[in-house]
Amino acid sequence: MSGSSFGRLFRVSTFGESHCAGVGAIVDGVPPGMQLSEEDIQPQLSRRRPGQSKVNTPRDEKDQVQILSGVEQGRTLGTPIGLFVPNQDQRPGDYGEMSQIPRPSHADFTYQMKYGIRASSGGGRSSARETIGRVAAGAIAEKWLNEQFGIELVAWVSSCGPILCPDMDEDLLTREKVDSNIIRCPDAATAEEMIDLVGQLREEGDSIGGCLDCVIRNTPAGWGEPAFDKLEALLAHAMLSLPAVKAFEIGSGFHAAVMRGSEHNDPFVQKEGRLGTVTNYSGGIQGGISNGEDIRFRIAIKAPATISRAQKTATFSGEETELAAKGRHDPFVVNRAVPIVESMAALVLMDAALMQRARPLAEETSLF
Amino acid sequence: MSGSSFGRLFRVSTFGESHCAGVGAIVDGVPPGMQLSEEDIQPQLSRRRPGQSKVNTPRDEKDQVQILSGVEQGRTLGTPIGLFVPNQDQRPGDYGEMSQIPRPSHADFTYQMKYGIRASSGGGRSSARETIGRVAAGAIAEKWLNEQFGIELVAWVSSCGPILCPDMDEDLLTREKVDSNIIRCPDAATAEEMIDLVGQLREEGDSIGGCLDCVIRNTPAGWGEPAFDKLEALLAHAMLSLPAVKAFEIGSGFHAAVMRGSEHNDPFVQKEGRLGTVTNYSGGIQGGISNGEDIRFRIAIKAPATISRAQKTATFSGEETELAAKGRHDPFVVNRAVPIVESMAALVLMDAALMQRARPLAEETSLF
Amino acid sequence: MSGSSFGRLFRVSTFGESHCAGVGAIVDGVPPGMQLSEEDIQPQLSRRRPGQSKVNTPRDEKDQVQILSGVEQGRTLGTPIGLFVPNQDQRPGDYGEMSQIPRPSHADFTYQMKYGIRASSGGGRSSARETIGRVAAGAIAEKWLNEQFGIELVAWVSSCGPILCPDMDEDLLTREKVDSNIIRCPDAATAEEMIDLVGQLREEGDSIGGCLDCVIRNTPAGWGEPAFDKLEALLAHAMLSLPAVKAFEIGSGFHAAVMRGSEHNDPFVQKEGRLGTVTNYSGGIQGGISNGEDIRFRIAIKAPATISRAQKTATFSGEETELAAKGRHDPFVVNRAVPIVESMAALVLMDAALMQRARPLAEETSLF
Amino acid sequence: MSGSSFGRLFRVSTFGESHCAGVGAIVDGVPPGMQLSEEDIQPQLSRRRPGQSKVNTPRDEKDQVQILSGVEQGRTLGTPIGLFVPNQDQRPGDYGEMSQIPRPSHADFTYQMKYGIRASSGGGRSSARETIGRVAAGAIAEKWLNEQFGIELVAWVSSCGPILCPDMDEDLLTREKVDSNIIRCPDAATAEEMIDLVGQLREEGDSIGGCLDCVIRNTPAGWGEPAFDKLEALLAHAMLSLPAVKAFEIGSGFHAAVMRGSEHNDPFVQKEGRLGTVTNYSGGIQGGISNGEDIRFRIAIKAPATISRAQKTATFSGEETELAAKGRHDPFVVNRAVPIVESMAALVLMDAALMQRARPLAEETSLF
Repeated sequence: MSGSSFGRLFRVSTFGESHCAGVGAIVDGVPPGMQLSEEDIQPQLSRRRPGQSKVNTPRDEKDQVQILSGVEQGRTLGTPIGLFVPNQDQRPGDYGEMSQIPRPSHADFTYQMKYGIRASSGGGRSSARETIGRVAAGAIAEKWLNEQFGIELVAWVSSCGPILCPDMDEDLLTREKVDSNIIRCPDAATAEEMIDLVGQLREEGDSIGGCLDCVIRNTPAGWGEPAFDKLEALLAHAMLSLPAVKAFEIGSGFHAAVMRGSEHNDPFVQKEGRLGTVTNYSGGIQGGISNGEDIRFRIAIKAPATISRAQKTATFSGEETELAAKGRHDPFVVNRAVPIVESMAALVLMDAALMQRARPLAEETSLF
Repeated sequence: MSGSSFGRLFRVSTFGESHCAGVGAIVDGVPPGMQLSEEDIQPQLSRRRPGQSKVNTPRDEKDQVQILSGVEQGRTLGTPIGLFVPNQDQRPGDYGEMSQIPRPSHADFTYQMKYGIRASSGGGRSSARETIGRVAAGAIAEKWLNEQFGIELVAWVSSCGPILCPDMDEDLLTREKVDSNIIRCPDAATAEEMIDLVGQLREEGDSIGGCLDCVIRNTPAGWGEPAFDKLEALLAHAMLSLPAVKAFEIGSGFHAAVMRGSEHNDPFVQKEGRLGTVTNYSGGIQGGISNGEDIRFRIAIKAPATISRAQKTATFSGEETELAAKGRHDPFVVNRAVPIVESMAALVLMDAALMQRARPLAEETSLF
Repeated sequence: MSGSSFGRLFRVSTFGESHCAGVGAIVDGVPPGMQLSEEDIQPQLSRRRPGQSKVNTPRDEKDQVQILSGVEQGRTLGTPIGLFVPNQDQRPGDYGEMSQIPRPSHADFTYQMKYGIRASSGGGRSSARETIGRVAAGAIAEKWLNEQFGIELVAWVSSCGPILCPDMDEDLLTREKVDSNIIRCPDAATAEEMIDLVGQLREEGDSIGGCLDCVIRNTPAGWGEPAFDKLEALLAHAMLSLPAVKAFEIGSGFHAAVMRGSEHNDPFVQKEGRLGTVTNYSGGIQGGISNGEDIRFRIAIKAPATISRAQKTATFSGEETELAAKGRHDPFVVNRAVPIVESMAALVLMDAALMQRARPLAEETSLF
Repeated sequence: MSGSSFGRLFRVSTFGESHCAGVGAIVDGVPPGMQLSEEDIQPQLSRRRPGQSKVNTPRDEKDQVQILSGVEQGRTLGTPIGLFVPNQDQRPGDYGEMSQIPRPSHADFTYQMKYGIRASSGGGRSSARETIGRVAAGAIAEKWLNEQFGIELVAWVSSCGPILCPDMDEDLLTREKVDSNIIRCPDAATAEEMIDLVGQLREEGDSIGGCLDCVIRNTPAGWGEPAFDKLEALLAHAMLSLPAVKAFEIGSGFHAAVMRGSEHNDPFVQKEGRLGTVTNYSGGIQGGISNGEDIRFRIAIKAPATISRAQKTATFSGEETELAAKGRHDPFVVNRAVPIVESMAALVLMDAALMQRARPLAEETSLF
């Protein structure tokens, strides 16, 4: 209840700061009998790892996951799965010079106000390293969702500052396509522009925000719990719980505000073996429940707050000062967020799947 | 856990459909010793009531709340507060003719898929009447937050279709100002335009979406629980759990995607008695925790799905058909959402306040 | 989270004090499509009602339940079911003379310490009237458990002070048998002795405790969640959450403390269509999970604290005083607890059933 | 929600089986700023460790705890604390010969029925090794409770089979006294008898049950949440969630069943600085809320199921067979349960303390 757990029946609890022994998670509610090994989890962890290219920070963290429990002879037991990733850099104090100056738009000030104490270095618990446990848990969820329902989750960078990825046929989008360039924009030409912009910002010691889109294919109709746990509410919760996320849209999103009902309504139509909709402004969810169409959402991620350009700000005690971050820092992180967003979405869906599984349906459902 | 409860320490559970005996809520975790009567709750309920003006539907629902428990001699006992609002219209079946046709972008289809059964009329549980319990609970939360911290929550209509409310001094915004016209846009001239547009859409049998903005003043620093229960994550969850909401922004929102770090970072500055920020792109929350600045968010609400214009669609069994809603329906509901959004935000803050209250801080907090 | 809700997937939240408008509950997670009406709920409520006989207090409370939501045309919708039972006596203040004297072994003192305020009369929230919502919810759970699995729950009075009900063939025990006398001891001769003892205590202005046994037949193997939510842990939680319950035993209970492993172990044996055990010292649960045998537990209920005999005690401010309750009070309540215990056990099982339903089993389960 | 977490505001989640990489826990809700190191946790872990004496099994497990996160420079950060204890013996398969025979009164059969799969060796998740995470978390809770309130928890072996520990002055009971002999019965002469009995059973290849008593001193009045989360209900839940526990009593326990109200009622009396009670049949809890007196409970623990004496039983497929456990096994485990019970009680109290801390009291509480 104190914020480090997510989910109801498929529930992940995470631990770990930027410079402690390591980060990890307990995943409770994993279906028994699944084939599972570190190899199923590592790919998404490796995708979120920094230092993969010139776009991101060169700090090298291996981030090799260890399964501590819940799996025997390659199969899950149904018991909680302990996951651990050691921190390579366990020396607190690297950021010591900043201890009197809360970094603007970081969590230094608010952690201090909340707890009366904060990690002496890095972001502590607010560091993006905290998401490692989420990604590891999400990989397990995703494996099950894919095996059981053929569910596919694909996220990509849809904008980098003012540069927008053009519309494309989302039915054909794959992770391979997304990963075909280091900035994870599936349009090659646009990707080049983005990479150039990021390079320029790195030279200027500045950073930039962007958008990330996600499509989820093959979700069955019926998932999501009215009234408070609507599927889009859980997705929004999941996404806004990620560092630096400032906005969330489902389906038509803010564009819905300028649309008429006659435009926005998604007419029903017979599709192969099911009732579908012609358009998908709903984003795959109606009344808080999946309708069988693609689930489609978008988030905005702000520019990284740590920049080497000098900024005017104040110390904890209110004195004016100037701050310029030392070292090399990511000017853009939306591409690294790709596996994190996919993982959080997988956690939401997995939990919703088990919730719906628990519900005995009225008999006449079979009439459809 | 099945979706009808919200909150951890201040927890509301709601019940009720559009045509059953009534709707209501249990509010658990209300501080003991508060002065509380129906008069504290009724104003927000009356603000959300339909039939208040020509903008909204003329269906008249009295929506008088009854306190069933938890209050004695005008003071709360600390025990759960039962709240009840009888439905005026308890006749199921009014929408009977539509029983074979799931209304486009309504919850008819998804409820049927989820439960194998659905209310034979109206929206059942997906009806906006479900929000009555939320508003009643939110009024209690808001009273306490205001008495204890001077917290003020003000929401308003910031757009109606393409018509945008101009920027204004949010420090001066009050509910009285917002309620000075029926469409709840605090700029009088813009409000007239909006009212005209809504009137025109009513004649055309169509509807329109819009945006709602909310500012929360005087929230202390330190509320919100990393990592999964960041304050903006709980707000996003709360907002996306409301019917027809398609998008959520905190602070800079989607605009963050085109901003540089050097622009977006909110520099610290000494303010009266506390460390504040010069700008507020963070929207009052950093690292998931309130920083003492105004909390600022925006949502998009789609056009009401029920329109009297004929729409092509399909029956449950997939046959093409045409549907035109009978009766009069709201062409615009963002103005009615104003007290609902304020109430959901109050529930989030109240719960966060109690969570933080539960935490014994490290001693040095007092050094600031 | 503040104590007025019970269960995870089948979740009851209750409200109400002894002298407010009424008591009730919201039951979330009820399977959709069930036939359900007040007639399914009323019998257990009527069994718990006081004033049914000379053994219990003559105060007459009708306790007619109203279904407020979640049911349409006699079938559940899968949405939360609101339940309400008006209080006949809504006048606070009857016990006003005791306001300066906390009743010994009542909740007057502790409620005052916990909340800083308490209901001015009766037991407020600590009154046994709070159990009405539990019983109503339990009746719904029991109906589903019986329809789906043939589960039967039968509780009875196994002791009244020193008078013990002799052992009997529990396979033949029915509610009709238990209700064949007013003290709900299924052995007629023993029941007579108990009734005499209770009558004698009533004349003496005193009261007496007793034990209640419960058997649950036909629970499938596999229910209950290790490690913290073992089935017996949830039953113990449920039972100790009832007023006046001081002890709980599962299976062999305290007798286990004097038994050897070679005696206590329940050997496996082939039974019709399943693997069963020869003895049942486990009480139907092993490793926290039901094993298919009868679930068997016992509780102790203390003598009612309100007695008309004068007791030496102290006022809230510590002055010595004497207290003698006015009016007529129950000298024995174990018989009234019978439907309450059955209901709480039904809530535990229903929730465990849905939890297990949510779990996709490993394939080889079918090998048995 | 799937059973591996306990608590609301102070919440422990555990992982680990008997033969995986290790066992551990995440503890969320730890107050920030506490001095904390492995040395604070290890003593209770060492007390629960097997192989300490001739009474228990000689299998040697080091059980050295590692703090993985949440502590920096010796002080807690308020973030979740990861705890890990490696398993010395990580080889699954030791019990392979028993794979076709579910051990009587073990969890082999029920785990198989629940999950469709089970650990191939040892008890898997049902092993007592699972309690390591609980003990580690409990040690943190206990440290805080002691520093803040002077709370002391002392458990001891009150019976071993038919041998009962005589009554003693519980105010003088300390852990040192309890640990003065290997069987943890504070009466030296009785302890000798118990040790002899256990030695005899070991020779016979049999085992024996016993009782464990616990007293908690200095709990403030006001802790525990009516109605469902009464303090005794949470304690009962905690205790019955431990392996092999068959019964729980609070205060008078089953003896309450034979007592009259005039005997059982605890009269109030002025004590130093507070209102107390003359007797304590309530066991320190009234109406589900602590009253400031000692909290007093007792549990029964059955004889260990694994015995080397041959037992008649059946295979999974129902064929009659005989089973005799190989190796050396504990004939008695109540003494090892002492720190486990203290830890679970500490978890319950810590959580209750934070829950009560979260509640703003009505003003007049200060009148007392």
